[in-house]
Amino acid sequence: MSTRNTAPLPDPFRLHRGGELPGGVIAYETWGELNAARDNAVLLFTGLSPSAHAASSVQDSRPGWWELLIAAGGALDTNRYFIICVNSLGSCFGSTGPASIDPRTGYRYGKHFPEITVEDIARGGHAVVEHLGIRQVHAVIGPSLGGMTVLAFIALFPQAAKHLLSISGTDAASPYAIALRSLQREAVTLDAAWREGDYLPESPPRAGLALARKIGTITYRSARELQQRFARTPSAEGHDFAVQDYLAQQARKFVDAFDANCYLRLSRAMDLFDLTQHGDPATLFQRSSLQSALVIGVELDQLFSIEEQSRIADALRAGGVSTTFARLDSLAGHDAFLVDFASFDLTLRRWFDTHSPAGVNHAP
Amino acid sequence: MSTRNTAPLPDPFRLHRGGELPGGVIAYETWGELNAARDNAVLLFTGLSPSAHAASSVQDSRPGWWELLIAAGGALDTNRYFIICVNSLGSCFGSTGPASIDPRTGYRYGKHFPEITVEDIARGGHAVVEHLGIRQVHAVIGPSLGGMTVLAFIALFPQAAKHLLSISGTDAASPYAIALRSLQREAVTLDAAWREGDYLPESPPRAGLALARKIGTITYRSARELQQRFARTPSAEGHDFAVQDYLAQQARKFVDAFDANCYLRLSRAMDLFDLTQHGDPATLFQRSSLQSALVIGVELDQLFSIEEQSRIADALRAGGVSTTFARLDSLAGHDAFLVDFASFDLTLRRWFDTHSPAGVNHAP
Repeated sequence: MSTRNTAPLPDPFRLHRGGELPGGVIAYETWGELNAARDNAVLLFTGLSPSAHAASSVQDSRPGWWELLIAAGGALDTNRYFIICVNSLGSCFGSTGPASIDPRTGYRYGKHFPEITVEDIARGGHAVVEHLGIRQVHAVIGPSLGGMTVLAFIALFPQAAKHLLSISGTDAASPYAIALRSLQREAVTLDAAWREGDYLPESPPRAGLALARKIGTITYRSARELQQRFARTPSAEGHDFAVQDYLAQQARKFVDAFDANCYLRLSRAMDLFDLTQHGDPATLFQRSSLQSALVIGVELDQLFSIEEQSRIADALRAGGVSTTFARLDSLAGHDAFLVDFASFDLTLRRWFDTHSPAGVNHAP
Repeated sequence: MSTRNTAPLPDPFRLHRGGELPGGVIAYETWGELNAARDNAVLLFTGLSPSAHAASSVQDSRPGWWELLIAAGGALDTNRYFIICVNSLGSCFGSTGPASIDPRTGYRYGKHFPEITVEDIARGGHAVVEHLGIRQVHAVIGPSLGGMTVLAFIALFPQAAKHLLSISGTDAASPYAIALRSLQREAVTLDAAWREGDYLPESPPRAGLALARKIGTITYRSARELQQRFARTPSAEGHDFAVQDYLAQQARKFVDAFDANCYLRLSRAMDLFDLTQHGDPATLFQRSSLQSALVIGVELDQLFSIEEQSRIADALRAGGVSTTFARLDSLAGHDAFLVDFASFDLTLRRWFDTHSPAGVNHAP
């Protein structure tokens, strides 16, 4: 069973870097049932572009982006856990964002939407948890931007989770990742259709958004994977090579689904996040209710390096949190959590099996 | 002593993929003196963007891009060798290219310039060597695109060199490099000022070219270097971070110097090159006059991987060419040959010291 719903944000919702939103909402989906003790919730934050539709459900049978992991008997077992996935504040899949109507004007926020931070996204997730009457989640988990958001969540709400799972995230973006994201944003704003952010919904900066996504696609994967999949196979679509067809396909999917202003806000939020702005990370973790953590990184991740994963694990351990650090080998690089399900399934399953809440029966 | 000059191309010059150029020229500079035996010439091809001005000279005192390597007593010793650097066909620093006037129309070639291949660039270099009355060069050497050009040179003119030095080049571009270059070209053509290649010289697609160069800059370097140099230092130029200032500076230098149509042609030429189109590489090398080779690669080079360098060295050895393969460690990645002179100086000096032509006296 799944519910697709929205939770209200505090009204008005004041953003971390200024500005406020009246009547904001956060879209979320859930799978499984909240138990009587209300201690089996797992809060899932997403990467930059996915919606809250992490898995299929009776209401929405389309496969979700973690379809193979969220299921009855799955690594995130819907028989045991009440799984909540939230659409990030600033995104365009039901949560309030630049593509939403500003109730004060009756027009889309567009370029007038305030700057978003990872902290704001974390507060959006917390609003959902409160809305559902949950005082403390069993675990907060997220990949990529979601892996950054779980850290912000603990910094802002130190008592709100028992366990933390950070996947291919970071405590502070590297200059390499910042550089790449800044160029993706530049691609969007270079498109004449961008019109300083005042594009019409029916004529968005498609070409710029496509180029941005292509840059992303290359850096989400590894050079070795592209070599194995494409080598120098000729194009079937009028480019020179098949690898260019692949980039074009990935870009088309994204451009059809995502709003440019939303993309720009979420992208910059990733650059700006720095956990140390909340104080020494080890001290933060020490003062939190966290009992244990799982940090997963991928060796070939170009964008969120394995050193960054190691740094997060070290800070958690220094804060007295019992921490497992899983270094995965995957040719898929940063995108491994979206495609290399076998490794993630095993790692997550093993962790959840040994970190169940008291009220949940282990599977035999 | 240096001479800056042009050599005529065969007239008309028929290009590898069709089209022809009337009255074409190749710009070159030289350092040192050709000896009486005419066997001490070193032919240097460049990367995508540099001119033939590899070092300063009496005529032009500006430092060149290999200033520290080409000098009296340097790794490329102008007391012993006659060094010739050629500006690639299709570039915009004196050689015939898209920014040149088509004598048939009186207008710039612009978008009407034929497609260029690495083979065409190699033939341009050969035209210079013939123009100078040199039957066989002592060595042909080049970094990046130049490292590809030296291979094309041997494929087309198997008897034209005694030694080959390939630096951070490739025998066939990887899909990762192709993907990145295709996006750089897309950045240029996304700029409204591009006008399908019909931009006016005074209003080129500056923003698109800037974005293309920024993408290049990131991939020419390593994530670790950016971390060491910039970490999360704030911007001094109105961006968020200093790494963005750095990209903007690199882009400005390039945009001020390079023509967009030239860039597009040379970039695509790099994608299209595949030495195996000339037959089995080992057989090619075996039938050539090559006696020895030096292949230099940089471990952290993202764009021309160390595996590609290894493949070139293997093919040379399989062809019976005595080959040294130097794997260099440098945080500068692909750009190491432009910035990390200490490692290159040592490697090149050692090689030239043990591979002098008979007519050249060794320094004591």
